[in-house]
This record gives sequence, C-alpha cells and structure tokens, in this order.
Amino acid sequence: MLLCDIGNTSYHFYDTTAQRDYKETASGFEPKSVREQVFYINVNPAVGSRLEGLENWIDLRGYVAWERYYETMGIDRIAACEALTEGVVVDAGSAITVDFVRAGRFEGGFIHLGLSALRHAYRGISPKLDSSFNFDMQLDKMPKNTTDAITYGALGLLADKVHSFGLPVYLTGGDASTLKPLFQTARVEPLLLFAGMQKIIQKAKLC
Amino acid sequence: MLLCDIGNTSYHFYDTTAQRDYKETASGFEPKSVREQVFYINVNPAVGSRLEGLENWIDLRGYVAWERYYETMGIDRIAACEALTEGVVVDAGSAITVDFVRAGRFEGGFIHLGLSALRHAYRGISPKLDSSFNFDMQLDKMPKNTTDAITYGALGLLADKVHSFGLPVYLTGGDASTLKPLFQTARVEPLLLFAGMQKIIQKAKLC
Repeated sequence: MLLCDIGNTSYHFYDTTAQRDYKETASGFEPKSVREQVFYINVNPAVGSRLEGLENWIDLRGYVAWERYYETMGIDRIAACEALTEGVVVDAGSAITVDFVRAGRFEGGFIHLGLSALRHAYRGISPKLDSSFNFDMQLDKMPKNTTDAITYGALGLLADKVHSFGLPVYLTGGDASTLKPLFQTARVEPLLLFAGMQKIIQKAKLC
Repeated sequence: MLLCDIGNTSYHFYDTTAQRDYKETASGFEPKSVREQVFYINVNPAVGSRLEGLENWIDLRGYVAWERYYETMGIDRIAACEALTEGVVVDAGSAITVDFVRAGRFEGGFIHLGLSALRHAYRGISPKLDSSFNFDMQLDKMPKNTTDAITYGALGLLADKVHSFGLPVYLTGGDASTLKPLFQTARVEPLLLFAGMQKIIQKAKLC
C-alpha cells in the first residue's frame, strides 16, 4: 500500500510493503506520474487541482470521523491524532502543530510557527535578531544572553508548555530531529502520520 | 527634559515638562532637526549614523550599570527593567521583549516575535493560516478552532508563561493596548521606558 502526506513543501510517501519513505517537492512533483493506488492527505491548497480526476489518488478526508475533531482542522493533525490513544503530538513542519489526545479523544491543540518561518521572522525584525537557535539551551532559567533569549521566545515557551502536561510526547515532521534536544522526553516518530492514516483506512475498511 | 526611545520603526519622544509623548517614523525623521538637548536610547542600527556628531543628542548607553545586565542586551530592555523593582515587563514592539526583575535585580528574559511579524509569518506559511488573532480567547483550555489555535500558538503560550510567575506585569510598547485582553492582570504603561531612562539619568547625575 502506498500512502502520501502532502504538505506545504513536499509530498511525503510511505510504501507500507517495502517499509520505505521518500519525499518529492510540492512545487515540482506531478501526482499523475504515479500509476498505483495512493491513499493521501493534503493540506496544500496549491496542489489540489493537480489531484483532481486522478482516480488512483484516494483522499482520506472523506473517511475521517469528523465529529471527533473540528471542521477547519488540518487533516495532517487529525492523522497524527489518530495514531495515538494518549499523548501530545508535535508535528514540526512549515508550521509546528501541537495536539493533545487523552483516552483516545482529541482534546484540542494549537498552531505554532515552524523553524524556518521563525528564523526568517526574527531576521526580518532586525539584523541584531538574526541569530541561530541554541537547541541545547536549559529551559529552567530565564536567559541572560541574546541567542538563548531568542531561542526561548521562539521555541522555549513551546517546549515548556508541551512538557507541562506530563503526557508522552511524539515528535514528528521534517524538523523533528533538529528540535529533539529541546523536547528531552519526546520520542521522534518520523512515520507517525502514516500510522494514523493506516488507522483511518482500517476503520473505514478501505483495505 | 526631552527623552527619546528609538526603535526599529519610530522615534518615540517624551517631553517631561509638558508630560507629552509623540512619535516620528524611524525611516524619515532627521534627528538634527531637534535643537534642544535629548537623552536617548537606540536599538536601531540604521539610524546610528544620523546621530553621530550631534552634541545635543546624549546616548544613555554609556551611563547604564552594565554589570547588572548582559553585554548584547538591548538598551530598551534595560531601560524598562530600570523602571521597576519587582515585576515582568512585556514590551510589545516589532519584537516583544519579556524581562523579569526581582528585588531590583534583572533575572533574565527573552525575545518573542512582535504582532506584525507574527501575522506576516503565519500568512507566509499558508493562506489557511492567514487568520486574525482572537485577543479575547480563553487560555485555560486547548483550542478547538483555527483562529484560537493560531492565537494560542502565536501569543497564548507567551501570555501563559508571563502570568505563571505571579509577579506584577507591566505592558508597554506600541502593541500594549492590543495585547491587553490576553494579559488580564497586566497594567498598561505606555511611558515605562521613559521612567527607566529618567532613573538612569538620575543615577548618573546627568540632570
């Protein structure tokens, strides 16, 4: 079975038989070049038209138990939530989405800026704020240097909040490994959304 | 006495005699057009050269007790800290700086993106994230709609952290009034930095 998670920057494929994942750029890739059946989720409005009329591309949006989520919630966040019964998902892509699941129920979540957007935004304010982040900073004390002050404002508040619930933390998305040092107790799960997509497929008896 | 706080977007003047404050744009204003003595702080590298050689413009940077702060700390943050003996300063300009003072000592702080940079950055990720913020949102529950999910990621984490210390909160800077609903216990103090500048002037016996 071939799964695809389409985000703002890439098509992320997972071949469940070969247990292999790979990426194609969102701007360049032609979905009609794929001949086999693909179960997909898509949050990128720019690629929607390319998928129209392709019968082998099956949108999982129609098979979600929407009453458990909310109407405008990103399908990628839903797939991540479907993958767990208890915990916090931190999906670090162009945005960092954070979602809470307790006893198999979605309990809300939020949307934070992604790493690249944060870097770009600090740089845009002033050259004095064009600093790299210190992913190894200590979060238990208020910073007394510029790099840590920026890192704390950009990512420390986020990591702090995620930890404060005492739930298992699952870190996924393209920037998961980079962020890992700030999320010390987190498990990095690069294929988490595909696990959620497989659950949606099973529940809907599509396969 | 005329005071001036020069930021990334404006010259903010305060006339202590008339008790009147006013702003000039950072890009257009010519400091040499002011004839009287001005005590100033400046965090905008782009205007530094315009101030050179102007003898009536007195930079307060040289009169700060730097050993209480750190070398690359913005002089605006220092001026804000000088204004209080206990509390958290949230200075909401192009960046939002947050600084902690206990028993008259600076105890660290951090640098968050400002409101305009946040709006611009969410919009840049995806048109789906081009949402206005809900400044009246409740911070005690995880959001279940897109506007609140974005507001919480952008500003809720920040407001939550600031409140968590149980210290008095002083909200200043151009976006202070806009942010006020999210910082319920905060006092809006538009002239806080000028109070700090006056303390620096008094300690250094400049006036």
